[in-house]
Amino acid sequence: MRILYYHCLSPFARKARVVLNEKGLHFETVVVRDWERPEEFLALNPAGEVPVLVDDDYVICGATAICEYVDESYPAPPLLSHDPVQRAEVRRLVDWFDHKFFQEVTVPTAGEKLTKRVLTRDAPDSRLIRAGRVNIHTHLQYIAWLSERRRWLAGESLSLADLTAAAHLSLVDYAGDVPWEEHELAKDWYARVKSRPSFRCLLAETVPGVPAPRHYADLDF
Amino acid sequence: MRILYYHCLSPFARKARVVLNEKGLHFETVVVRDWERPEEFLALNPAGEVPVLVDDDYVICGATAICEYVDESYPAPPLLSHDPVQRAEVRRLVDWFDHKFFQEVTVPTAGEKLTKRVLTRDAPDSRLIRAGRVNIHTHLQYIAWLSERRRWLAGESLSLADLTAAAHLSLVDYAGDVPWEEHELAKDWYARVKSRPSFRCLLAETVPGVPAPRHYADLDF
Repeated sequence: MRILYYHCLSPFARKARVVLNEKGLHFETVVVRDWERPEEFLALNPAGEVPVLVDDDYVICGATAICEYVDESYPAPPLLSHDPVQRAEVRRLVDWFDHKFFQEVTVPTAGEKLTKRVLTRDAPDSRLIRAGRVNIHTHLQYIAWLSERRRWLAGESLSLADLTAAAHLSLVDYAGDVPWEEHELAKDWYARVKSRPSFRCLLAETVPGVPAPRHYADLDF
Repeated sequence: MRILYYHCLSPFARKARVVLNEKGLHFETVVVRDWERPEEFLALNPAGEVPVLVDDDYVICGATAICEYVDESYPAPPLLSHDPVQRAEVRRLVDWFDHKFFQEVTVPTAGEKLTKRVLTRDAPDSRLIRAGRVNIHTHLQYIAWLSERRRWLAGESLSLADLTAAAHLSLVDYAGDVPWEEHELAKDWYARVKSRPSFRCLLAETVPGVPAPRHYADLDF
């Protein structure tokens, strides 16, 4: 019995879900409104945040722990490579998107337009959204730069770096804040991730109360 | 030839340094004022942040990538355990201190009192410092709770979880904001980490322009 505690507003939970799909693992998805701090959920994860994976008797908390655990326990296909230096490159980029991109883009765009709306019903801060929309260009240029030199972001194979970047971008794309038309190479890379069967569950999903923009689930966006 | 690009104001760089010491590796430490974005350093790490490890020809960027790489490449003593579930517990706690503790405590205390002073000479924001001083109690209680149940934070052996927590605490302690006298169990645990030879380099160091409080380097604080 395998359960992923999940919410679509968390890019970290999105990543964990896609990773489980890439590994071909069967699991049940339980949606948790973690910001309401439900007691049964806090008992699982004292940090009070999705994602949490329950794999039989084991409780694995947090996207980093889940992704590394899944790759160690279910090695095929490898999402972190077998070579220590290559693994370091994957982890460098995972960190880039989970922290740098998250702070500079995901939080000011999707955080303001989606998370704030669902959690507080407060109006989004338009200055923050503008800042996020400026910041995203550097990141899309970096994706383009990487994908001109390598087949996937961290090297010749799809890795956790691609899934992490795409998980964040999927949320920002839902907020309508990815200027794909100005970044053809980044768009080509995202189209390749987006069209993977592992990603379908994200594209089929709706943030409560916020309809998805028309291009969001379109594989020929 | 092994070089660690480092600054004592970064708890992540502190952690990487202690991990290299725990592994008994020889390395040179190069201090980088990364906030000035020196060009040669940006060429090594486009994220522009310490720590960076250069191990012969390999460039490993970021504390997570460095610590995992070092543990994979130099397995003794293991800092992440060999069991996937136990490794997940180590990584859960690493994440707790690197993100939750960092945001809730390190940034509002040491960030205001040390980093801001060195970087901008602006006055620290006393409301933030007060918030950090309130937040730290929960974390010290959690350390106590864990160390009542286990010899070290993640289990029976010293792990990356202990070194991560202690790296952050060392910086907050330098700012004089750890109320050790109210948290005896957390203090006992910290005394055990602090007295390890791997930790000495941190205790011997001074933040430029800010003298260390008297108890900072004292093993019987």
